[in-house]
Amino acid sequence: MAKAKETPRTTPALEPLAIGIDIGGTGTKYGIVDRVGNLLFSGEMSTKKHLHVDPFIDELYVNLAPFIEQAGGVGRIKGIGIGAPNGNYYKNTIEYAANLPWPGIIPLGKFVEDKFKLPVVVTNDANAAAIGEMMYGAAQDMHDFIMITLGTGVGSGIVANGKLVYGHDGFAGELGHTIIIPDGRLHPGTGKKGSLESYASATGVRLNAIEFLEKSKTPSLLRKVPKDQLDSKAVYDAAQEGDELALQIFDFTGKILGMALANFVMFSSPEAIILFGGLTKAGDYILKPTREHMEANLIKVFENKIKILVSHLKESDAAILGASALVWEMK
Amino acid sequence: MAKAKETPRTTPALEPLAIGIDIGGTGTKYGIVDRVGNLLFSGEMSTKKHLHVDPFIDELYVNLAPFIEQAGGVGRIKGIGIGAPNGNYYKNTIEYAANLPWPGIIPLGKFVEDKFKLPVVVTNDANAAAIGEMMYGAAQDMHDFIMITLGTGVGSGIVANGKLVYGHDGFAGELGHTIIIPDGRLHPGTGKKGSLESYASATGVRLNAIEFLEKSKTPSLLRKVPKDQLDSKAVYDAAQEGDELALQIFDFTGKILGMALANFVMFSSPEAIILFGGLTKAGDYILKPTREHMEANLIKVFENKIKILVSHLKESDAAILGASALVWEMK
Repeated sequence: MAKAKETPRTTPALEPLAIGIDIGGTGTKYGIVDRVGNLLFSGEMSTKKHLHVDPFIDELYVNLAPFIEQAGGVGRIKGIGIGAPNGNYYKNTIEYAANLPWPGIIPLGKFVEDKFKLPVVVTNDANAAAIGEMMYGAAQDMHDFIMITLGTGVGSGIVANGKLVYGHDGFAGELGHTIIIPDGRLHPGTGKKGSLESYASATGVRLNAIEFLEKSKTPSLLRKVPKDQLDSKAVYDAAQEGDELALQIFDFTGKILGMALANFVMFSSPEAIILFGGLTKAGDYILKPTREHMEANLIKVFENKIKILVSHLKESDAAILGASALVWEMK
Repeated sequence: MAKAKETPRTTPALEPLAIGIDIGGTGTKYGIVDRVGNLLFSGEMSTKKHLHVDPFIDELYVNLAPFIEQAGGVGRIKGIGIGAPNGNYYKNTIEYAANLPWPGIIPLGKFVEDKFKLPVVVTNDANAAAIGEMMYGAAQDMHDFIMITLGTGVGSGIVANGKLVYGHDGFAGELGHTIIIPDGRLHPGTGKKGSLESYASATGVRLNAIEFLEKSKTPSLLRKVPKDQLDSKAVYDAAQEGDELALQIFDFTGKILGMALANFVMFSSPEAIILFGGLTKAGDYILKPTREHMEANLIKVFENKIKILVSHLKESDAAILGASALVWEMK
């Protein structure tokens, strides 16, 4: 059963609208958006429970149909933009997405097009968030920035010369999988060692915590937390109590993230790096060491120049807005 | 005293020409180029001996003036393109270039403009090489590629969506300074630890060799080479004799380089990475482990997809051609 909320606002009649869909590993968010970024209708459903993509699209359709009707019918909708892990902009597919229940290559764009009878454009979720940020958020008027999503995993969207960097095959911006500790921690999803995502995601913070608890003798509130509840929220709560080990865990996470961000800066020299997602809620516990270690690893020409910003778009909205924004660029 | 050669070829009369200048830490190469990439005149002089930039520009002018005269006078030249370490495209400056004798921020574009009475555009040397490659070399028709120059240092030029990535400040593409071994080898020029350049440049191979000779007991031809002559050429010569330690040194260098290239691929997903510069002369000794370790660190969507190519432009020409090509893009 979908949770849905209706938030109609004033939109000029007859202007075209767009559908934005953000597919995550756990849940999928969707909405109808107008040209200036008003989210007119929005809802949310489970991704995870659908082991096959067909019934997933069926439920999506059932949930969206009444909204489309209320918005003035399908004729009023210009198209559908979808952000999804490993979404491919050139091929309108999802390919080998480790966090989704559907294996291999899924021609998602075609499937959704057939069901909704509307043009569809697919991109990866972090690219969609970057577009949302550029059109409605912290990156307005920026031509060069990097969006990093720190959630269960680490995603990224890169804008250079005012354009999203898709690469030759549509898969650019997999910064979560860059190697930051050679021969480091194994990523069970990719089989690779030492990636940024293994350390600086919510999952990574949990693993950092387990490692620190095992290796250190420092007394800590975290020693009382059952292992299955030892998540980034628990580390945050302990840090709030002044727990030294919890602070060390965030320092370590920030060190890795800061080093990675320095590398990204030396690649594309962005005006800002915009952080987004659950882990940013740890605030300065993670931002302070991240900034410090980014600066420490930058060569002189970049020192004290690159902003690290936290997205100020509502998390649930940004991805839908970004996905819908893809529609306005459709030919 | 400048070495110069004259290689006049057929160029349509009255077509505009461009001057290309490639400033390196040791020497500076310059030439006059036509629209289709014929190098009509070219010469070379020392950079290093000029502790100040003014007499450097004076000598450059003295050397180029007769060529300009022969080419039909200054009226025939559209402008001057300069590639230089830490050259800034937006500001026409060289800033804090560790490998040049001139410290701080040098308004090189303005100085050269004043002397030659011609419009000047400055960029970093690897960006210039990338443009040369795109217009006349291995990257023709590519919209997404990365150029890596493996010389005394490691430089890079990145093309995404068909455009050079300059970043918000003109300094993008400092991939040689990305950190690949956290807390690794100190780079004396930048004071940073573990950068790609510390391991995978000609200087890096020398340091790798010294380290391997100290740490290992393996007999090696390299043990007979005086320490001040232990350079990448000496390692290559030993590898040619089947020397096991020399092969291990190239394997190690390729491992680091391959890991770094994997990270760059996961950033911008280029169609190809084009390698350029002295170290590429080691051929498969370095290319084979580089390819292997790049593939080993790539996530599935990138596997067996990204070409590693060696530039087929003549090394001395590519940088001049690339620098001159900047002129055709001038407004």
